[in-house]
Amino acid sequence: MALKVYCDRMSQPSRAILIFCKVNGIDFEEVTIEILKGQQHTPEYKAINPMCQVPTIVDGDFTLFESHAILIYLSSKYPGVASHWYPSDLIERAKVHSVLDWHHANLRRGSVGVIVNNVLFPLNDLPSNAQAAEEAEKTLEKALTVLETYWLKDGPFLVGRSQPSIADLNLVSEVMELQLLPAEHHDRILSPYKKVLKWVEDTKNATAPYFEEYHGVLFKARDDMRELLAKKSGKNE
Amino acid sequence: MALKVYCDRMSQPSRAILIFCKVNGIDFEEVTIEILKGQQHTPEYKAINPMCQVPTIVDGDFTLFESHAILIYLSSKYPGVASHWYPSDLIERAKVHSVLDWHHANLRRGSVGVIVNNVLFPLNDLPSNAQAAEEAEKTLEKALTVLETYWLKDGPFLVGRSQPSIADLNLVSEVMELQLLPAEHHDRILSPYKKVLKWVEDTKNATAPYFEEYHGVLFKARDDMRELLAKKSGKNE
Repeated sequence: MALKVYCDRMSQPSRAILIFCKVNGIDFEEVTIEILKGQQHTPEYKAINPMCQVPTIVDGDFTLFESHAILIYLSSKYPGVASHWYPSDLIERAKVHSVLDWHHANLRRGSVGVIVNNVLFPLNDLPSNAQAAEEAEKTLEKALTVLETYWLKDGPFLVGRSQPSIADLNLVSEVMELQLLPAEHHDRILSPYKKVLKWVEDTKNATAPYFEEYHGVLFKARDDMRELLAKKSGKNE
Repeated sequence: MALKVYCDRMSQPSRAILIFCKVNGIDFEEVTIEILKGQQHTPEYKAINPMCQVPTIVDGDFTLFESHAILIYLSSKYPGVASHWYPSDLIERAKVHSVLDWHHANLRRGSVGVIVNNVLFPLNDLPSNAQAAEEAEKTLEKALTVLETYWLKDGPFLVGRSQPSIADLNLVSEVMELQLLPAEHHDRILSPYKKVLKWVEDTKNATAPYFEEYHGVLFKARDDMRELLAKKSGKNE
């Protein structure tokens, strides 16, 4: 039975896992759980992942969630995965763990907060919280600064590596989610971070053609949302 | 040169690493960086850890931060560490990674938010944000419920294990930090979670006598803070 990946291409960690599997020739079945339609809350899915989140993998009898844990598991299980994705050297591996752990309370927290407050709330006509939006943007900008000046200081990929690790794929997927912001907002936030922008391109190139393919749904959603937000903003003037 | 552990016994992940080293007979030098005195912001410490956080380890030429990454590194480096701390079996290891990853945005986020809003702000005469305090408590209670009903459902330790892993030590250290809350607040939050309370005791017993020893500073601070908060609250009546 092939590995099952329960996911939504609109979710950044889901895309990281899908791209990882394709790049490494891992055979899998993609099972879409549409978050915006609430499909993560069905009893069937809750039986698989009681946290009601994507992604989850089911590999035979074994169910696993949390994207970092999944990427480590897949890297360790499949001998065909190139060693740069999850280095076996103790120190190199520790560095990859370190940036993955840092991600949770920094880049991810900032990115999710910015998107919730600037895209999801307005799209759903929910009142936005100006203070929460401002704090999320500060968290995001601080995280981007740390990426630019620390994690990317020694090489094209994170923690000074010359080829991408699972951390690059996961964190770049997170940065890509910011595409959902209105164009000028996106560009204002990201344009100061030249190394970050180059790193996104390098990761995209290192995982071509799958990177573009699995981001297609996000790009389509971005265009639809920007149009809708522009209409709403016009109405409110 | 012995391993250096830069830490503050008031910090929950610092305590996890100190206890881990003692229990496993790892030789180390404890270098105290007092957070409440701002010692994490000195140029000397910033050169070691530009994130200005504890804990950090320095092992020869190698510097590492993020407590989960440190615990994995130490478990992998020292052959004397019993295998239950970081299992080598692929699936068992993946489960440990999964609960460690879950911790970041759930238990830790809730716990830190509750302590900042209910202890640190009032102690420093800073205005508390009622909405933030309420949200943090909701996050914490949700995390405790997930611990009780999911992560501890299959055994005395996390993910159904019969002996503690690095995840137990790290997450129990986090729960212990709640001791800083006023007594009735602490008991109101924790008392519904019987499995969690037993798990804290089991982890304490499995790491005796070091658990109590390295929590001594926290217990002293708890008593001091409770006295101070009681005085402040009296003044405000």
